Amino acid sequence: MEFIDGGVTAAKGFRAAGICAGFKKGKKDMSMITSDVPFQLAGTFTTNLVKAAPVVWDRKIVDGYGTAQAVVMNSGYANACTGKAGDEACRLSAEAAAQELGIRPEQVLLASTGVIGMALPIETIREGIETMVPLLSDTRGAASAAAEGIMTTDTVRKECCVEFELSGRKVTLGGMTKGAGMIHPNMGTMLCLLTTDAAIDHKLAQKALLSAVRDSFNMISVDGDMSTNDTCLLMANGLAGNDRIESVSEDYRIFADAVLTVTKTLARAMAKDGEGAHALLEVKVQGASSKEQAAALAKSVIESNLVKTAIAGHDANWGRIICAMGYSGATFAEDKVDLDFMSKAGTVPIARSGVTTGFDEGLATKILSEDEITAVIDIHEGDQEATAWGCDLTHDYITINADYRS
Amino acid sequence: MEFIDGGVTAAKGFRAAGICAGFKKGKKDMSMITSDVPFQLAGTFTTNLVKAAPVVWDRKIVDGYGTAQAVVMNSGYANACTGKAGDEACRLSAEAAAQELGIRPEQVLLASTGVIGMALPIETIREGIETMVPLLSDTRGAASAAAEGIMTTDTVRKECCVEFELSGRKVTLGGMTKGAGMIHPNMGTMLCLLTTDAAIDHKLAQKALLSAVRDSFNMISVDGDMSTNDTCLLMANGLAGNDRIESVSEDYRIFADAVLTVTKTLARAMAKDGEGAHALLEVKVQGASSKEQAAALAKSVIESNLVKTAIAGHDANWGRIICAMGYSGATFAEDKVDLDFMSKAGTVPIARSGVTTGFDEGLATKILSEDEITAVIDIHEGDQEATAWGCDLTHDYITINADYRS
Repeated sequence: MEFIDGGVTAAKGFRAAGICAGFKKGKKDMSMITSDVPFQLAGTFTTNLVKAAPVVWDRKIVDGYGTAQAVVMNSGYANACTGKAGDEACRLSAEAAAQELGIRPEQVLLASTGVIGMALPIETIREGIETMVPLLSDTRGAASAAAEGIMTTDTVRKECCVEFELSGRKVTLGGMTKGAGMIHPNMGTMLCLLTTDAAIDHKLAQKALLSAVRDSFNMISVDGDMSTNDTCLLMANGLAGNDRIESVSEDYRIFADAVLTVTKTLARAMAKDGEGAHALLEVKVQGASSKEQAAALAKSVIESNLVKTAIAGHDANWGRIICAMGYSGATFAEDKVDLDFMSKAGTVPIARSGVTTGFDEGLATKILSEDEITAVIDIHEGDQEATAWGCDLTHDYITINADYRS
Repeated sequence: MEFIDGGVTAAKGFRAAGICAGFKKGKKDMSMITSDVPFQLAGTFTTNLVKAAPVVWDRKIVDGYGTAQAVVMNSGYANACTGKAGDEACRLSAEAAAQELGIRPEQVLLASTGVIGMALPIETIREGIETMVPLLSDTRGAASAAAEGIMTTDTVRKECCVEFELSGRKVTLGGMTKGAGMIHPNMGTMLCLLTTDAAIDHKLAQKALLSAVRDSFNMISVDGDMSTNDTCLLMANGLAGNDRIESVSEDYRIFADAVLTVTKTLARAMAKDGEGAHALLEVKVQGASSKEQAAALAKSVIESNLVKTAIAGHDANWGRIICAMGYSGATFAEDKVDLDFMSKAGTVPIARSGVTTGFDEGLATKILSEDEITAVIDIHEGDQEATAWGCDLTHDYITINADYRS
């Protein structure tokens, strides 16, 4: 498997576009992805009881058909808490796209992100679709435009692409995602669109997607809020011509590994671009008895506002890490915990057997001043591990969120 | 029942002191409370798996004896994650106080708050005790000094006192508490000391305390972090001369109501003085089928960083409230939710049946610009309700926590 430059148009037969439709001032705010042929479809969505209308729409397609041919996305309006009018807006959006593309409305997926509670301006959606359809293209630039169209408070476009082989054929898997607030274990607003030319049954694509999301998007946290709109879709159109994957075979494992690689890369990029973030914080818990225990501890640390603010201050206030482990719900022996901080600037052992090493504060501050920091926690119980990704909590987070609608 | 001016020295036979012992520069950082006679003791503590040494010490006294006669407190050092040396520091502290006071070490309770992971300087504790014992007094000023000695990032001293009658005798219950970070449902660092001259068996005092804490301190949130040091003690020395409460009688109910009144007042004060807070946010969920459902919804809203930052920006971004309700784990019908914002500046209906009322944004902003704001949420299912208290999340929270140790 090899990383290549590319996004959602890298796999054969996928086209995309991204435009300024008018939901936001002077910024791209609408995107489309289409496939030349129908694709096998996998999807996973927010577990928030309050689900945006497009989430409800997509879920029916994923569960009822397992196949589709296009996605229409917008940013600026979440189309959540919009009642029956929100459902109606979905139907009209899908019908408009279907008509322009010559497909059926139930082959059109939808994804929205933005402010909750405002009615989606359906005329703007219709005009956006009419504008985009002639622009749909398989170029690298089209993929980037689509990735920009779904950005909200993201500061960088997030794309990733890998190439690998299945039954002697070259297969491509590309993806794009947007964060950056409401990022939380078990998904935050987050839209993620993955396209591949692999031939695979949608049930196996779903299996690979769920497994990858568990170890990638469900292991990141920016602010602890879980969105109403989270959507992660995997579209596989089969144009690579590999032997279709229909069981948990060696080919399946290669494919699943590719999905995990792309989602992990995108998840890490989302955490690093968390709202107001100046640094990526990676928390690796090792020496655990079980994967679940390691994951619970890593997530609890990454979610702690006090840990996040300490990182913002380059302050090796390690007690906050042990404290967050303590309320994680997972058990561990405090007197067996070892903790190190690492970055490009070096490694500093902070605690051994639960007490301070008497570390050099100057060195610790230097290490914590880099823009990618890892905390390695060993609980000395077993050989399982888990990694979670988050970011520091800064003044900029407050500035962004205190006035998001203004 | 009547509120009176007073703190931990208002009840008969209680004395207190608070001094600058030298843990922090130029600020009071050590306190004591003593009773002229042993008191019946109730206590509740952090549920964090990682417990500070003084929490472990106190718990043994609460569970093993149910009585004690003094409390020694310090701020600046949490004495958490300090290993065997931390336990030893507790023993030495209690022995020093016991010797000065002429009581036994197991009659001395301890409470610490501050930075985790640094060894408690035992000589400073010893000197502090020697300084304080001659200063112990039952004056109003002594109570305030003690309340100041436990402050960390608190900006105001938090005390409360009520008077009521039990079997024809005047009874006084006073208390003090400190916040202000790490405040979270199920307690944050938070020390709370309650003194009363009521005569009550420690088991019934414990019952009243647990019940009061559930509806007060467990319903507030500043930042979602649960401390290693949370301690809430209720000391009842019986000097009011009422008929000793030994069953769930009418007198018990009057007493329990007084404990709830004082803890609710202190909890609300803690939320309002949350780190960096500019406004108190009260979230009242009504029309619920059960108290548990109402509490889960209210807590989820109060804990949301996105709700907190919206309040900081005086922004009626109500979708974030519905969103936080949606991931609370409690069920409700989105299309039955009514939401109002209230403050001294008025009331604005924001949502009816889950969709916007098309409210006046200017009026909403005016209402959200006050320093005490209430969100009233009605889910129209039943007649149960719950209230939670929190605060906005501001730049000052970041400033305070990014460099707490510096």
